[in-house]
Amino acid sequence: MGEVRAKRMPRAERERQMLDAAVRVFGERGYRAASMDDIADLAGVSKPLVYLYLNSKEELFSACIQRESAALIAAVREGAMGGGAADRQLWDGLRAFFTHTARNPYGWAVLHSHARTGGEAFVAEVMAMREEIVAFVTGLIVEAAREAHGDPALPGREVAGLAQALVGAAESLAGWANTDASVTAKEAAATLMNFAWAGLGNLMEGRRWSPPPGA
Amino acid sequence: MGEVRAKRMPRAERERQMLDAAVRVFGERGYRAASMDDIADLAGVSKPLVYLYLNSKEELFSACIQRESAALIAAVREGAMGGGAADRQLWDGLRAFFTHTARNPYGWAVLHSHARTGGEAFVAEVMAMREEIVAFVTGLIVEAAREAHGDPALPGREVAGLAQALVGAAESLAGWANTDASVTAKEAAATLMNFAWAGLGNLMEGRRWSPPPGA
Repeated sequence: MGEVRAKRMPRAERERQMLDAAVRVFGERGYRAASMDDIADLAGVSKPLVYLYLNSKEELFSACIQRESAALIAAVREGAMGGGAADRQLWDGLRAFFTHTARNPYGWAVLHSHARTGGEAFVAEVMAMREEIVAFVTGLIVEAAREAHGDPALPGREVAGLAQALVGAAESLAGWANTDASVTAKEAAATLMNFAWAGLGNLMEGRRWSPPPGA
Repeated sequence: MGEVRAKRMPRAERERQMLDAAVRVFGERGYRAASMDDIADLAGVSKPLVYLYLNSKEELFSACIQRESAALIAAVREGAMGGGAADRQLWDGLRAFFTHTARNPYGWAVLHSHARTGGEAFVAEVMAMREEIVAFVTGLIVEAAREAHGDPALPGREVAGLAQALVGAAESLAGWANTDASVTAKEAAATLMNFAWAGLGNLMEGRRWSPPPGA
């Protein structure tokens, strides 16, 4: 009966299982050390079936990058979708980011570490995803600056730099949080929110950023 | 005459020339695409001489990572050595960092991008360098918090996170500045200083961080 059910599993579902297994194996071991045997074993299918569905180790790794990129971007967009004041949107987006990377540590390791060790070919794919996140964050900062009474407004060039700083800080903290099990997603988000919003100058004097009620 | 002078060049000087050439070729093309022929050509020596001095492509790449790591750490330490108020020290350290990465774009590319594409073996070397910088920045933040009248003081755990955020932001901005020739080291440092010290909350309202006179 088990076999019959297994055979009847829809292709999309079977492929999802293979990708889940691949993300885990690639995330744990890196691109080169990961073997198709291990991935097939973990997915509970034969190696030829993995090749039939995903063609090659390169294409399988690329499919992992695509899926994990799309999931991360969707999570951040959805998190920051609630609107509200600029700091509230940033807080929501950061919590969504760190919650996602904490729940998907292998996916994050594939995107942030192993895509590069896989070689130059995969770097371009991850960089495209990163550019999309930087553009999204840039949009949030521009909108926030427009809402505020800042005069003069932040020049576009500086906003681009601030977005790069924020994304780089988030990447670094996600790596830190994922290597120390005692750091929660909310703590990582709060650390970055205080850094990015209040700034070190305020933190040194004990002036912290506080989440809005209910956030 | 030229040949005689070339033969008399001390070993250390000759090795430095080979490493200069290697950093440039690895930095431009990445670890795998770089060839020992190109490195020997650029250094103006024979390929066997490169092997005689540096043994293998792996060891040559590793020597590049070691040298560029040490130079970057030395530049940041020296930059932040002047003392003064916490923001002044941070400003000095950031300017030293961005000045160094702008002047050594190939060295920075080797450390930040290509060490990873070279494979897992080189990642550990770069991570050790990064840990040293994070520890140094952590020390600066702890000292600054102690000097300030913050009550309660910043907990050590949060300081570790803030240092990770600052280092990640600096890495990201260095990549941005090095891909856009119009971004100067001072501009990148000022963008990060405003982000890290004043914070987005202040920037939105037009309250900027200003360098101390003469900085």
